[in-house]
Amino acid sequence: MSEYIQHDRQGKTVGIVEKRYFSFAHDDKPMRLESGAGLGPVTVAYETYGKLNSKKNNAVLILHALTGDSHVAGYYRKEDAKPGWWDFMVGPGKGIDTDRYFVICSNILGSCMGSTGPLSINPETGEPYGVEFPFVTIGDMVAAQKKLVEHLGVKRLHSVVGGSIGGMQAMAWGVRYPEMVNSAILLATTTKHSALSIAFNEVARQSIMADPKWNAGNYHKGKKPDIGLGLARMIGHITYLSDESMRQKFGRKLQNKTDFSFNFDADFQIESYLRYQGKKFVERFDANAFLYITKAADYFDLERQYGNGSAVNAFSRARSRFLVVSFTSDWLYPTYQSKAMVKAMKKNSLNVSFCEIEARWGHDAFLIPNERLTAVIKGFIGHVNGQNERQ
Amino acid sequence: MSEYIQHDRQGKTVGIVEKRYFSFAHDDKPMRLESGAGLGPVTVAYETYGKLNSKKNNAVLILHALTGDSHVAGYYRKEDAKPGWWDFMVGPGKGIDTDRYFVICSNILGSCMGSTGPLSINPETGEPYGVEFPFVTIGDMVAAQKKLVEHLGVKRLHSVVGGSIGGMQAMAWGVRYPEMVNSAILLATTTKHSALSIAFNEVARQSIMADPKWNAGNYHKGKKPDIGLGLARMIGHITYLSDESMRQKFGRKLQNKTDFSFNFDADFQIESYLRYQGKKFVERFDANAFLYITKAADYFDLERQYGNGSAVNAFSRARSRFLVVSFTSDWLYPTYQSKAMVKAMKKNSLNVSFCEIEARWGHDAFLIPNERLTAVIKGFIGHVNGQNERQ
Repeated sequence: MSEYIQHDRQGKTVGIVEKRYFSFAHDDKPMRLESGAGLGPVTVAYETYGKLNSKKNNAVLILHALTGDSHVAGYYRKEDAKPGWWDFMVGPGKGIDTDRYFVICSNILGSCMGSTGPLSINPETGEPYGVEFPFVTIGDMVAAQKKLVEHLGVKRLHSVVGGSIGGMQAMAWGVRYPEMVNSAILLATTTKHSALSIAFNEVARQSIMADPKWNAGNYHKGKKPDIGLGLARMIGHITYLSDESMRQKFGRKLQNKTDFSFNFDADFQIESYLRYQGKKFVERFDANAFLYITKAADYFDLERQYGNGSAVNAFSRARSRFLVVSFTSDWLYPTYQSKAMVKAMKKNSLNVSFCEIEARWGHDAFLIPNERLTAVIKGFIGHVNGQNERQ
Repeated sequence: MSEYIQHDRQGKTVGIVEKRYFSFAHDDKPMRLESGAGLGPVTVAYETYGKLNSKKNNAVLILHALTGDSHVAGYYRKEDAKPGWWDFMVGPGKGIDTDRYFVICSNILGSCMGSTGPLSINPETGEPYGVEFPFVTIGDMVAAQKKLVEHLGVKRLHSVVGGSIGGMQAMAWGVRYPEMVNSAILLATTTKHSALSIAFNEVARQSIMADPKWNAGNYHKGKKPDIGLGLARMIGHITYLSDESMRQKFGRKLQNKTDFSFNFDADFQIESYLRYQGKKFVERFDANAFLYITKAADYFDLERQYGNGSAVNAFSRARSRFLVVSFTSDWLYPTYQSKAMVKAMKKNSLNVSFCEIEARWGHDAFLIPNERLTAVIKGFIGHVNGQNERQ
């Protein structure tokens, strides 16, 4: 267990973030995954913010997206360049108020940010799993989170909150463990990937696997497939933005030049920006983890898995209140997908609020400070069942 | 010169397609390119359909897109699997009626389908140019086409017609050689690439250049960068489709499976389809040509080059009638870009018709049989200046 002081932007201490690791086995047996394979022992890296109240009914579980981690808010050290990935939303007095709520954020299974994933040591070989790592699904990620939540003494979550594939996890929580979920907040998400989303993920995966350094997944002793992973990130990054945001931010601005280079250098700022994003990403992320998590996202199909092909059937298992938020410029999971989800919830007479937020930042909009989003989440989370969670 | 019989779909002979090669030099000097570099001699591969009338005023120049060629219509041989790339539009009695018009279609400079490009032999070395090939622009392509048109004895074109970067060429024709252009038809095109379009092209180029077999562009003696070029095509292919068309055609259908594979094979049909498109493409296209042409498309900026940053200024040079067509689901060059173009034309009191066609096929819509498109083009091209071109 490592402990860190949480700082605000001015470097003032505002609380304690504890980055912890929780390992479990199922009665000393490996965790049985949805693919049928076993995995064990399983470690879940997590952080908590705020305090669990005596009734243990103020816990909020935050679920991160593709390449996120458990560090959802605050700075570990004053000198850190950036706070946690959702710092504008999570903290004292913020949209998800850590003075009121006990916030839990864990790294997903299959990732490389502390939880068990392809970079972890395979106990059978003493080497990293690589592509020997079994396939994990959104359902497996959620099952591991449930173990963690129980370990923390929480029987019912005040809310589960996630964007993108974090939203898929929140959805899965709602239908798998309805008795444990008071409310669920689903941001910029979908019940199932469209062919378009699968297509982009597939090309990103092919980019990694085309890099000879990927070496059929066994790059742990040699050089990493940085070029392939960088390309994959560039593709992904485009899909997280929007035509409008890219036009406003970059347009056709040239990079340090007054005229074209007439060579294959980056002429335009958007080109340099993407190359930079690709290079930066490989420093913090594992190529195999990217393969596994994108595949888990593509496999996710709430309707197929929980509703025999019907979203209405799938949501018939849910009991919680829902807040669904989409963003106008999100073309990866467009609003029509959120609306279909809301319709299926309503057909089950579920209590659901829906909000489409005008935003030009594309799919990434939920990660970018937005007063409307903060207000909507704060309002929803503070009035679940009319309870005042301070009591 | 090779001559081919043109067949219709039933294998019936409907005319003669002549695939010819025209080479030129400027007073025995290399062609001066917009980059400042020289290129020479230059060969332009072209085909013609129909007959030039005695007044030489029935010529229609068709300009192909990124990976097209001069074979716009008909079958070379009965057993060919596919006709030319715009067969539904071009032929006897069709939208562009080869009984009425003398149709010219040439392969663009920088391509690998017969015209001079990176695969051509550099006369100075006796080897293929590779990346020693000078950069060519849309303007250079058009300048070479002008030489060809003059060579064919045509002083004024009845119409120039192109989609995508063919539309950029048609636009450039209109502002560079207004005295030679009676009318111009611009389909699914733009006066300049948005940051989004540049971004996709850049990732596609990086995919090629990341393939070790690209070998800094000198792959002519070794293996070709098929994997990188295949990836580039996969990326491009996604951008030519649309969310809607992919949903309708593929959705989440599985490929020869009833359940997920839980490995990195292609589970979904959309994945197999893209892999297949990538593989097929490398058989017919050159990786360096792809690099050069995408860069030419990114560089194209009608406003910057011909209007000092203003589309209104740029179109002030034009004299022809225009037909501008956009497609509802084209997210690469969306309708708002066509509308901006039309607005700039109108400010110059140009005679312009604009039509947004409801189509789910994305950017590729102009290449897919569409009765409305055919009718719009047939109507426009048949009534330019009220002339009857049979006379």
